Amino acid sequence: MLEELKKSVCQANKSLVDHGLVILTWGNVSAIDRQSGLVVIKPSGVGYQEMKPEDMVVVDLDGNVVEGNLRPSSDTPTHLEIYKAFEGVRAVVHTHSTYATAWAQACREIPNIGTTHADHFHTAVPCTAEMSKEQIERSYEAETGVSIVEAFEGIEPMHTPAVIVAHHGPFTWGKSAAEAVQNSVVLEQVAKMASISFALNPNLKMNEDLVEKHYSRKHGKNAYYGQVVK
Amino acid sequence: MLEELKKSVCQANKSLVDHGLVILTWGNVSAIDRQSGLVVIKPSGVGYQEMKPEDMVVVDLDGNVVEGNLRPSSDTPTHLEIYKAFEGVRAVVHTHSTYATAWAQACREIPNIGTTHADHFHTAVPCTAEMSKEQIERSYEAETGVSIVEAFEGIEPMHTPAVIVAHHGPFTWGKSAAEAVQNSVVLEQVAKMASISFALNPNLKMNEDLVEKHYSRKHGKNAYYGQVVK
Amino acid sequence: MLEELKKSVCQANKSLVDHGLVILTWGNVSAIDRQSGLVVIKPSGVGYQEMKPEDMVVVDLDGNVVEGNLRPSSDTPTHLEIYKAFEGVRAVVHTHSTYATAWAQACREIPNIGTTHADHFHTAVPCTAEMSKEQIERSYEAETGVSIVEAFEGIEPMHTPAVIVAHHGPFTWGKSAAEAVQNSVVLEQVAKMASISFALNPNLKMNEDLVEKHYSRKHGKNAYYGQVVK
Amino acid sequence: MLEELKKSVCQANKSLVDHGLVILTWGNVSAIDRQSGLVVIKPSGVGYQEMKPEDMVVVDLDGNVVEGNLRPSSDTPTHLEIYKAFEGVRAVVHTHSTYATAWAQACREIPNIGTTHADHFHTAVPCTAEMSKEQIERSYEAETGVSIVEAFEGIEPMHTPAVIVAHHGPFTWGKSAAEAVQNSVVLEQVAKMASISFALNPNLKMNEDLVEKHYSRKHGKNAYYGQVVK
Repeated sequence: MLEELKKSVCQANKSLVDHGLVILTWGNVSAIDRQSGLVVIKPSGVGYQEMKPEDMVVVDLDGNVVEGNLRPSSDTPTHLEIYKAFEGVRAVVHTHSTYATAWAQACREIPNIGTTHADHFHTAVPCTAEMSKEQIERSYEAETGVSIVEAFEGIEPMHTPAVIVAHHGPFTWGKSAAEAVQNSVVLEQVAKMASISFALNPNLKMNEDLVEKHYSRKHGKNAYYGQVVK
Repeated sequence: MLEELKKSVCQANKSLVDHGLVILTWGNVSAIDRQSGLVVIKPSGVGYQEMKPEDMVVVDLDGNVVEGNLRPSSDTPTHLEIYKAFEGVRAVVHTHSTYATAWAQACREIPNIGTTHADHFHTAVPCTAEMSKEQIERSYEAETGVSIVEAFEGIEPMHTPAVIVAHHGPFTWGKSAAEAVQNSVVLEQVAKMASISFALNPNLKMNEDLVEKHYSRKHGKNAYYGQVVK
Repeated sequence: MLEELKKSVCQANKSLVDHGLVILTWGNVSAIDRQSGLVVIKPSGVGYQEMKPEDMVVVDLDGNVVEGNLRPSSDTPTHLEIYKAFEGVRAVVHTHSTYATAWAQACREIPNIGTTHADHFHTAVPCTAEMSKEQIERSYEAETGVSIVEAFEGIEPMHTPAVIVAHHGPFTWGKSAAEAVQNSVVLEQVAKMASISFALNPNLKMNEDLVEKHYSRKHGKNAYYGQVVK
Repeated sequence: MLEELKKSVCQANKSLVDHGLVILTWGNVSAIDRQSGLVVIKPSGVGYQEMKPEDMVVVDLDGNVVEGNLRPSSDTPTHLEIYKAFEGVRAVVHTHSTYATAWAQACREIPNIGTTHADHFHTAVPCTAEMSKEQIERSYEAETGVSIVEAFEGIEPMHTPAVIVAHHGPFTWGKSAAEAVQNSVVLEQVAKMASISFALNPNLKMNEDLVEKHYSRKHGKNAYYGQVVK
């Protein structure tokens, strides 16, 4: 069942280690098969090295385990909220990568202050609102997903495929597991550079025209970055 | 004598290098056999690469060498105080890892400002009080242990298995040598992220409900992180 | 056509990864054959690992592709402006290396505060002026080159072979692809050390006599650093 | 001539790269044969990888080349001043390691704020005074050595075997090339931790009794760190 997706999800989970984005078991990748509405996700608390495609867990959008002998990641309900709200998303990544998590702990959005950011994220990377006691007690992981969706009010999630959850850490997404992982790589680098930039100049602001130019030259209708894919 | 414990302590000492927690000979791991009350510890000033299980030194809780041709780590009396005061502890690790040591030098406890911290340490990681001249001259390493125990007044040491000693560096512990080392890995990462977060926002505070939620979902009675171990 | 130059440009592009200056496809190297006025440059959006000398694109100084099946780097017009304005330049490198980019995002020139800087760059590494909306819309990449040239009013570009483009990142150059890459390595290191120095002392200033001494002992008429090359 | 010393100096120079203390050719190690008063030093501007023991240059204490086909390091006169003034020194190391150089650029001594520092350096690591125009023009490298010697007025150089030269970078020394390199490793780590500590708490001060305790337990008459060497 979904063998190809399991392979790519397993591979994407392992690649988090190669990219220096996770230690121990602090990260997870999932991907969705939009036709069946089934989600393939990393099992909870399992090491990346020993992980095999057949260890991946298959759940439906209500969180029921459809296939697999292991428990799905405890962050599964957060992933599901993102799939339910953002139609274009095919894969979700969660890490505790150093600099993105530091911004999350500081409860600050990561402003768009450079073309590296603008090449990949159209707006600031939003930071979610802090959750109420009720939200935390009711259904913590699902409410984390709800707070992510709320943070994208007025922002197109496929143009800014990243968020930081207050006090917690980053989530990114994309049209494939590999792309979602790449967005985590970019987010961590952007977060690191921004923290250094703000130490050098606390009053930074980006030229809005430059934001538009950089984003559109890579992602706009008339994009001219990279090779033409036909 | 205690061959299995020596192997695991030797292996844990070597792993400090792999995790980037020590350079030169700046770190040591010990473990206790609670039945006999004997402690296996790294020899003093010996390189990690050449170290073998049979080089480990066995001491009793009064610090007498029971077996071994080498001197035990000069930090042995600190380890012993921890074993005597904290019953659940089976292994102790000391390093001079970069960020945890920087917090120690700054004489600041590491506040619980994120879920990465809350997943592993229930409270702030306490910083010991500065020692008096009398303490330093009397029995420096044992008094270091005493100051650690005092810092846990009102804190459950198995729920916050880490401390930073003022002007010095971190100690962590756990139910095995491997777990104690893992807690040193987590502490260093948490210390690094916290130093970046405070530079971005000096007035951070964590939601207490979130602390409880994260700690309990991993360690509470109804923990649901990881696979069920029976 | 220009086989040797293609080899050295390809090799220099790959070396950006080894030096930790780029991730993904965030950097490009070009070199010029001054006799023919032809420029060899990295193709756009192609991975460094799979890149081969024959993938390099040859363009003339007006930006017309003279040879090659792939699109040239989207930064090509910036490279061309530098070749047109600065006669001594034989190779140009662009990266988004972490610390140099952080200074660019902070819109601050990198002052000459140490002998490491003075050994390689005679003056501060200038930061370009922010571009107007008109410049951005007219011909963004060429105007980036124009703003670089303007930033060198009164500065000899072969004595300070580096610039940071406001909100964007660094460009360096040299008399060969290898030398231009080396200048990127130096720039990143100088940018990193300067960011740490300014955190320790925000009011730094360098002794001008020391600047002259260090630059001239390596690059002046009576240079005495290194072995005598005849 | 001095074959063993050449081997150890060559090896020590190469080890600077392994320890991450130098890039390009930014560092040099020398050692002295106190009986003959001859100094073996790295040749100027030569890469570490290709360097062989027979490339090392032998100079006397007046700087005359006694053996070798290559030019000695341009920093040779600085090394010689150190050998002439500090009798116990058998080897000298100069690097531009990142954090130690950042402190040098900030023209700040590195205060003794932790036991890691106190274990190796008895006092603050002093920063030299800025040189006058006359000094720089007269004999720059020798005057660098003079300013180092002056910075140790009232400090025992074998108890604090490290200095940072204002606007420039660190020098360390020891009783052998390997020990001098190790002191460079310690200095860089101490400099890094201190920069993080001061960001967390700008008003740090170390307990003097703790300084004495830590230094003396490793280096005092009754040292009890490490194994007994007889």
